[in-house]
Amino acid sequence: MKARARNIALKVAYAGTNYHGFQRQTPPVVAVQNVLERALAKVCAEEVELAAAGRTDAGVHAYGQVVNFFTDGRIPVKRLPRAVNGLLPPDIVVTEAWEAARDFSARHSATGKAYVYRLEQCTVPDPFTRNYAWQIFQPLDVEAMRAALAMLVGTHDYSSFRAAGGAPMSPVRTLDEIRLTEEGAGRLSCYLHGNGFLYHMVRNIMSTVVSVGLGRISVERFGEIFAVRDRRFASPTAPACGLYLVSVDYEEEADGKS
Amino acid sequence: MKARARNIALKVAYAGTNYHGFQRQTPPVVAVQNVLERALAKVCAEEVELAAAGRTDAGVHAYGQVVNFFTDGRIPVKRLPRAVNGLLPPDIVVTEAWEAARDFSARHSATGKAYVYRLEQCTVPDPFTRNYAWQIFQPLDVEAMRAALAMLVGTHDYSSFRAAGGAPMSPVRTLDEIRLTEEGAGRLSCYLHGNGFLYHMVRNIMSTVVSVGLGRISVERFGEIFAVRDRRFASPTAPACGLYLVSVDYEEEADGKS
Repeated sequence: MKARARNIALKVAYAGTNYHGFQRQTPPVVAVQNVLERALAKVCAEEVELAAAGRTDAGVHAYGQVVNFFTDGRIPVKRLPRAVNGLLPPDIVVTEAWEAARDFSARHSATGKAYVYRLEQCTVPDPFTRNYAWQIFQPLDVEAMRAALAMLVGTHDYSSFRAAGGAPMSPVRTLDEIRLTEEGAGRLSCYLHGNGFLYHMVRNIMSTVVSVGLGRISVERFGEIFAVRDRRFASPTAPACGLYLVSVDYEEEADGKS
Repeated sequence: MKARARNIALKVAYAGTNYHGFQRQTPPVVAVQNVLERALAKVCAEEVELAAAGRTDAGVHAYGQVVNFFTDGRIPVKRLPRAVNGLLPPDIVVTEAWEAARDFSARHSATGKAYVYRLEQCTVPDPFTRNYAWQIFQPLDVEAMRAALAMLVGTHDYSSFRAAGGAPMSPVRTLDEIRLTEEGAGRLSCYLHGNGFLYHMVRNIMSTVVSVGLGRISVERFGEIFAVRDRRFASPTAPACGLYLVSVDYEEEADGKS
């Protein structure tokens, strides 16, 4: 079988509420990948198979997921987003497309990622943000949360925040930036950038940081939980609806973009 | 049949995306009223029938819809929101409940209403706001839109913006406040307050004001369209997803709230 001529990369935004995660599922279960591959197959006039930078879970959102696929389809990349978006439902949007280098892999070439986790402090449930943030019905101590988050910056063993029963890979990662921002009206947004994240790591960090914000555990206790490198001491995984994959980093030459 | 003992009023917020409007529909079509009445029936241990201040259309949202119903149910109003919200889907929330005066009608006692219409100027579709704002893919001239909106303040015949084939009622209304606010990141929010609105009036105003913002019609032409009192000259009705019923006014004694 002849190798397909082009390696096309896409940046994709989606609201994950109605999907069983990014990764392809067996119908009738629908994942973002199923829907995106179907639309791309029409535009490229052949079956396509996507590789994605991050396999977001059910309910998790993305501003800047990156995928790539090989095709002999002839559509110019400039016209591709509009053509594909015309076939996609309103909650999935291709925001960019480019010809990637032959050996570019959205998944394996990634050198870093950024996530945002959104929290909303409210007195009554807000029907407009319930799928887009974790709603918290008590006030949060933002300064205590910041003190806890500050401990996580650097190169560390994040075993305390990895998913129970996750794949056996090194639990050491580097988080070089964590910012908890107050956005007004009780909304908080936590930005995390690192060279990689363990499965459920952001959601487990956030649930434990929220426990600090609610005064259920002290900042000192948070430090102990982090140091013990044992998942059983951190809080239960935070809801998927608050998590957004913001962006994926690649070395300049790798994605062939510039 | 003995009259029921209590007249309970509720303030309700909902995201209208998944409903065929507020007004009760024959199943399998589902309206907000169907869902709300079913939950209230459980809490009150009897069938209830709601009257609502505004019959929002399919896809239209509400921050502060007001409804009332008569019941012999004994639940204290203080406990009612939490009890009902526990039975409601995440996109409908009762935010307030109070004992209303015997002759209070959410619909007929209303003396005014406020709506917001949200617009978003974007270069690519945004999957997170597509159901919550009218997305516009060209820049809007906000000052021209404000000049057009300013003409509408006061007591006027709004026939040019009423729904074609609407009910034969007086087309004269008073709009005492219209504010078009820039909320950053290309987002615009238009607040309209008046003593009443004709069917589709806000959406027909907004579509025609957007035509002004896009330079398709001049501010002068907008004035002519308003003056001619004929629906055929205004722009096609703007999308439902941008519209929010914000609040309903009552005279203080009427709702028995204070």
